Amino acid sequence: MALTPYQQLEQEFRRLHAFRSAASVLRWDSAVMMPRGSSDLRGEQLAALETEGHALLVSPRVSRLLERADANAQILEDWQVANLREMRRERDHSIATPRSLISRLAKATSRAEMKWLEAKQKSDFSIFAPHLEEVVNLLRDKAALVGKALNLDPYDALADEFSPGLRSEQIDAIFTALGRRLPGLIHEVIDHQAKRQPTHEITGRFAASKQRALATEVMKAMGFPFDRGRLDESEHPFTGGVPGDIRITTRFNPAEPLTGLMGVLHETGHAMYDVGLPEAWRGLPVGRDRGMAMQESQSLLLEMLICRNRPFLHYLKPLLEKSFGVSGPEWEVENLYRLLTRVRRSLIRVDADEVTYPVHILLRYELEIEILKGELKVKDVPEAWNSRMEDRLGVRPSSDAEGCLQDVHWAVGSFGYFPSYAIGAVIAGQLYESLRAARPDLDEEIAAGQFSGMFEWLRQNVHSLAASQSMPELIQQATDKSLSAAAWVRYVEGKYLEE
Amino acid sequence: MALTPYQQLEQEFRRLHAFRSAASVLRWDSAVMMPRGSSDLRGEQLAALETEGHALLVSPRVSRLLERADANAQILEDWQVANLREMRRERDHSIATPRSLISRLAKATSRAEMKWLEAKQKSDFSIFAPHLEEVVNLLRDKAALVGKALNLDPYDALADEFSPGLRSEQIDAIFTALGRRLPGLIHEVIDHQAKRQPTHEITGRFAASKQRALATEVMKAMGFPFDRGRLDESEHPFTGGVPGDIRITTRFNPAEPLTGLMGVLHETGHAMYDVGLPEAWRGLPVGRDRGMAMQESQSLLLEMLICRNRPFLHYLKPLLEKSFGVSGPEWEVENLYRLLTRVRRSLIRVDADEVTYPVHILLRYELEIEILKGELKVKDVPEAWNSRMEDRLGVRPSSDAEGCLQDVHWAVGSFGYFPSYAIGAVIAGQLYESLRAARPDLDEEIAAGQFSGMFEWLRQNVHSLAASQSMPELIQQATDKSLSAAAWVRYVEGKYLEE
Repeated sequence: MALTPYQQLEQEFRRLHAFRSAASVLRWDSAVMMPRGSSDLRGEQLAALETEGHALLVSPRVSRLLERADANAQILEDWQVANLREMRRERDHSIATPRSLISRLAKATSRAEMKWLEAKQKSDFSIFAPHLEEVVNLLRDKAALVGKALNLDPYDALADEFSPGLRSEQIDAIFTALGRRLPGLIHEVIDHQAKRQPTHEITGRFAASKQRALATEVMKAMGFPFDRGRLDESEHPFTGGVPGDIRITTRFNPAEPLTGLMGVLHETGHAMYDVGLPEAWRGLPVGRDRGMAMQESQSLLLEMLICRNRPFLHYLKPLLEKSFGVSGPEWEVENLYRLLTRVRRSLIRVDADEVTYPVHILLRYELEIEILKGELKVKDVPEAWNSRMEDRLGVRPSSDAEGCLQDVHWAVGSFGYFPSYAIGAVIAGQLYESLRAARPDLDEEIAAGQFSGMFEWLRQNVHSLAASQSMPELIQQATDKSLSAAAWVRYVEGKYLEE
Repeated sequence: MALTPYQQLEQEFRRLHAFRSAASVLRWDSAVMMPRGSSDLRGEQLAALETEGHALLVSPRVSRLLERADANAQILEDWQVANLREMRRERDHSIATPRSLISRLAKATSRAEMKWLEAKQKSDFSIFAPHLEEVVNLLRDKAALVGKALNLDPYDALADEFSPGLRSEQIDAIFTALGRRLPGLIHEVIDHQAKRQPTHEITGRFAASKQRALATEVMKAMGFPFDRGRLDESEHPFTGGVPGDIRITTRFNPAEPLTGLMGVLHETGHAMYDVGLPEAWRGLPVGRDRGMAMQESQSLLLEMLICRNRPFLHYLKPLLEKSFGVSGPEWEVENLYRLLTRVRRSLIRVDADEVTYPVHILLRYELEIEILKGELKVKDVPEAWNSRMEDRLGVRPSSDAEGCLQDVHWAVGSFGYFPSYAIGAVIAGQLYESLRAARPDLDEEIAAGQFSGMFEWLRQNVHSLAASQSMPELIQQATDKSLSAAAWVRYVEGKYLEE
């Protein structure tokens, strides 16, 4: 029997998935296993797979099939219509960006990343500036082309690649609300915490092997499927591989036993999302996660809202004592809790606590919009960064390295990515509120090391829906409210201003 | 400027290489890193990449380009003509085997491999027999189709996939010579060794970590590029990855410190071949190794002829003593030499010494030809195996597990592969004779841990030529003699019958 156009599209997109899933394992390998001298070769391998995928998406055959399947969409089930919509979105993105622009961007970002690293090491923005300029120019072209094709503002055209359907309008509404509340909130929290400081710091050395064993035990308790996934170490923690073979990485610092574990828990949040994606849709666009903001909501929900909290620390305390052979006041739940929820005005985003974190994002969002529009000249970025950082958070970087050179995102062309982090936090706050309402005994479950109820709720309300709906639709459905910062603010106030 | 048909072919085959090199790293990952539960998914990933490669090779575009490039071959350089010839060979193989047959074979061999494992564990050939029957039937179809397309005898059509250009005619000539000389030779050697047995066995436990460190040190001395390659552990040792990122695996048994090292040296022989392939031809058919027999010649040359020999053991002795903190009569060069060159009539091919090894291959070659022709019925294989084993080597398996069930090759459909092992040994013998003539101080160099001269000769005479010539042409050119068993027999006589 002849395949329908829709069925033929499924075949084509499963081919696309084969290229991408191979590339994904190769990227994990690059970060964890590959000898350093092989990076050029690996770059060629990845570029070749990427080229195949791009050629597939822009082929006349796929566009023809999309037209014919659209014309017959009435025979499709809902999830298939969603699948078709996601296929079209991917095709539109690819077809809007000419191959020549992709390749110029690849070269420019690869150069810019090297120069960024050098500039950061020497804390000298001027080394990086001309290369950032070049990247920005190319991104403006890309944003204009994709924006025209998808009928989006230039910034939204770029952001759509990371968090499909996320628009500046929503971001602005949420960030305006955060921007209004945060300065006062941070002030209150720091004030409040002044009399609630941890009484004991953790000192000593904790072997990486012991940290790994502990992290593995906790991941197992959470249901991470070690028969279909791994935990390894790499310079920068990430979650890679493919659903069905998920590869988490982290870093273990012998002096900071909690940092490595929190990193693992963050990645486990990502991983459990991937684990929960429906197997039946695997390899199809509808079966993918719902973008970076949603991904980040899952990692933050687990790390920040669940694990940096007393019930989880009740569960963790005996494990810490057993794993490291320790005891004493610094390992008491209340002390651990205070250590893990300290709020401070600090310069480095990745080390920031959850209360001040959004300020770092708001700043980057503002700046990257102005840079793209040409309202802020690249050469003026350091001064703009430093003065606004001082204005918004009350701390001023004394060097570019701890200021505008701290993140790699702009160097690699990821304009439009930063909002996903803060939107992810907001989503996490909103999901957490509904999760607590749905499971009144959540705290007791967590304290007892029972995580299945929580993950079951997330699976039903988020994971299993994959990309079948837009992110705001998913949130509306899961929480009965439209996406807003309100729940996150309530959560932070409740947690950090408790009496 | 428009690309010529030949240049377009280069592009197409570099795409093919991208699929294959991704698959190669994924296969390494499967054996070394992948969680066990992900094997079905990985199978799908590999099948998808394989399907892409097959589709490319059988595309009308590639056939059209081959015709047009052939018509203009006079403008090409020699290596490009060779490249074209290899492209055609690959296309011919792929186009001769219909997709449906490939997929039936894939399913049949996957089933057969499982049943083989079960049969081997229970030592019961009857569990495996019907599945082997099915594989053989499909292979007969494949052999007929490929044979017709390439104008080859059915057996040669299968063997050509493993060692391009190797024909039964050559195999028969060499195996006849070996078959005549071996029984007497084995008898003489065992007789001769009776008064030259090792005086001390090696006992004790040798930590895998120490074995790995020693193996790494020796590999470094040989010039293995650890900035573009790795050494890991897996159940079955192999050399994988891709040139530019070569992944060796081995097994370390704490009770057998020499076995693991010899395994590493065997794989290092393969790896150095891959390392020596010309970078300029990377990704093109002309740039590949010259098939399995040639590959095996490189691993056997290093393991058997170079390393299981006194000069190498002079180099190795102090390293063993330092690595394991040992000394004593069992670690003396002459004792190590005797331990590593013991000749015994034994049942298991992979454990056989280099003198009796070809007997195992001759037996399999005979049998697989008769099975394919239908002259030997599958059900009669165990009896044929056992009686001929007794006849040729004087030992009779007491069970199928140590008889016809010991190798996986037939289960996975690799009929035509076995000869490569013995032809590889013969090539190694012939290359070794020429290498010694070209480097009269070879023994002194090896004893001093200087391996660069040897590898330089191999690079010039074998590695750098890749697939630019046929294997017999390469041997003729490197040794000034046509391929024959004579040099190998001289080598074995000189080494094992020395006074």
